[in-house]
Amino acid sequence: MSKPKSILSASCPVPKLDFEIITMGHGSGGLLTHKLLDGGVFNILSNEYLDKQHDGAVFEVYSGKMAFTTDSYVVSPIFFPGGNIGELAINGTVNDLNMCGAKAQFISLSFIIEEGLAVTDFWEILLHIRDAADRANVKVVTGDTKVVERGKGDKIFINTSGVGQILPKAAIDINQIKSGDQIIVSNDIAKHGIAIMSVREGLEFESDIESDTCHFNEIVPELLAEFGNGIHFLRDATRGGLSTILNEVAQSLSKGIEIHQKSIAVDEAVSSACELLGLDPLYVANEGVFVAFVEKEIASAVANKIRSWQHGTNAAIIGEVTENHPRQVVLHSAIGGRRVVNMLLGEQLPRIC
Amino acid sequence: MSKPKSILSASCPVPKLDFEIITMGHGSGGLLTHKLLDGGVFNILSNEYLDKQHDGAVFEVYSGKMAFTTDSYVVSPIFFPGGNIGELAINGTVNDLNMCGAKAQFISLSFIIEEGLAVTDFWEILLHIRDAADRANVKVVTGDTKVVERGKGDKIFINTSGVGQILPKAAIDINQIKSGDQIIVSNDIAKHGIAIMSVREGLEFESDIESDTCHFNEIVPELLAEFGNGIHFLRDATRGGLSTILNEVAQSLSKGIEIHQKSIAVDEAVSSACELLGLDPLYVANEGVFVAFVEKEIASAVANKIRSWQHGTNAAIIGEVTENHPRQVVLHSAIGGRRVVNMLLGEQLPRIC
Repeated sequence: MSKPKSILSASCPVPKLDFEIITMGHGSGGLLTHKLLDGGVFNILSNEYLDKQHDGAVFEVYSGKMAFTTDSYVVSPIFFPGGNIGELAINGTVNDLNMCGAKAQFISLSFIIEEGLAVTDFWEILLHIRDAADRANVKVVTGDTKVVERGKGDKIFINTSGVGQILPKAAIDINQIKSGDQIIVSNDIAKHGIAIMSVREGLEFESDIESDTCHFNEIVPELLAEFGNGIHFLRDATRGGLSTILNEVAQSLSKGIEIHQKSIAVDEAVSSACELLGLDPLYVANEGVFVAFVEKEIASAVANKIRSWQHGTNAAIIGEVTENHPRQVVLHSAIGGRRVVNMLLGEQLPRIC
Repeated sequence: MSKPKSILSASCPVPKLDFEIITMGHGSGGLLTHKLLDGGVFNILSNEYLDKQHDGAVFEVYSGKMAFTTDSYVVSPIFFPGGNIGELAINGTVNDLNMCGAKAQFISLSFIIEEGLAVTDFWEILLHIRDAADRANVKVVTGDTKVVERGKGDKIFINTSGVGQILPKAAIDINQIKSGDQIIVSNDIAKHGIAIMSVREGLEFESDIESDTCHFNEIVPELLAEFGNGIHFLRDATRGGLSTILNEVAQSLSKGIEIHQKSIAVDEAVSSACELLGLDPLYVANEGVFVAFVEKEIASAVANKIRSWQHGTNAAIIGEVTENHPRQVVLHSAIGGRRVVNMLLGEQLPRIC
């Protein structure tokens, strides 16, 4: 496994702790837990909320709607090209809030550590968490640390939950989708899953394929401010990939979906890797791609806006919602054929997030 | 391991699924994940928020303060006398919100399942989660399910996070504590840790010792409504036990704490078990005991009120905060001696929650 270069630096040295690996005692709630938290977590992630070190965080809210989400991250390996489990845990949960039409504000952070994890790895993950939280402009306000015996976990699992208030003009709801709505995909697909597979299988591609992990905590509020309730539904295309999201929508609404293969951007190296691995990019997980169902009249403007964002340069309208073939997603292939695209069955890419 | 009697009943049969154990495919995000969730989770925990099946839940909030907390539960075994991991995951997170002065309202639920978990066990845990949520009057509104390979987890880990608005009269803050404050413990201590140890070590005691797991989502709002800012600080005595909580407070405030052994209730069977296992009940985890630091004038009334609650029959004033011996917790023993009680060092009882 190639571990990408460390972001450890002279400004953030690993603290002088009297242990090099994490042991069961660090999960006891006693003195060792305090040493780990005071020396590491609270130190790196310090903010006015977390510093209270109480059982929970307390913050002000304003009358309105709030979004609340959770995800546990079990990605393996924990460091991979273009990202790591800590960065993923922040971006993924921030993005789930954005998909509800909220701006992410506060994040909780809970570790399940396998006994034996190197303190340097834990430290590096903490630094990535801090950096990702800074980039997304969210605060980690409350947390928890548990340790399990060797062989009862896998290095580290991270749960993040998040809250954020729904943006004033947002009206995101699957039932807002209507026939004729245009489907926009925010960037080229399948990078994350392939980046994970490449290191896991020890594959070497000609060009490095990096995860697309990023946060949507600026672009989504911008889109909602500009296009308001013209944006009917948002969903990130993570586990199960683009095809699973589209099938979920088609089945939930009993409407049909038509998509055009030539409009769905796939990086050339990713496409080659998919062929090599026998994978269809439509089923491969993304961590930096969302799907928007929007009013037909604004679709081009929305796609243009997304393309102006650094992580949306390949955004495109890829299809539309239709009254035809209800509950089915139909792909118009690049060579002129048509085929039904089903939901992912079984375990194509386990533990990719 | 003695698995307490099932609450599975004719009214909640295990659904007819075409699988008996959970496999990696159930964590893929695809069709198998949908089968598991539709057949189980969404079915049992159904409510207006969860039924949306979106990336997060959306609910109304009102201007004011909100508490937010998280905990991952890794207790082993997952079924134990007096409780199970599902019930613990609801009660523990509800209680953390209560300790902030909030009424718990909304809970997120995230599973990390080890491949091979029996569907019947998962089903039973879901039923316990539903029952515990009903008892505490909270709603599970959003969730996540991941599956890891055999030997990379341990049956099931559960993360719950929770939010709830701070109660109008609450002013809970460690800095509210002042010298002379009385310390109330809400019930007899050490039951949860001993219940777990007994099954884990295969010990048979004369009388069954059951976990004290319960929620505080009625008693705490009642106390705050009646005594308001006379209640300065609340904390549940979980990992590290009563002594760790007291040491945290003493060190954080640079004040001393004096406690009286004869006032600290310990069930007779628990006391015998502690002797047998060489454990000090002051360090053993509780899941249904909280510590309140209160204004001297109202201490008796608060203790009386707690004693009227079914899980507080042994509530007592056990000591006070003092200007003497700052940062030290001093125990006056039953036989007239004095000793310093330190924070738990190392791993007395791993994975008790």
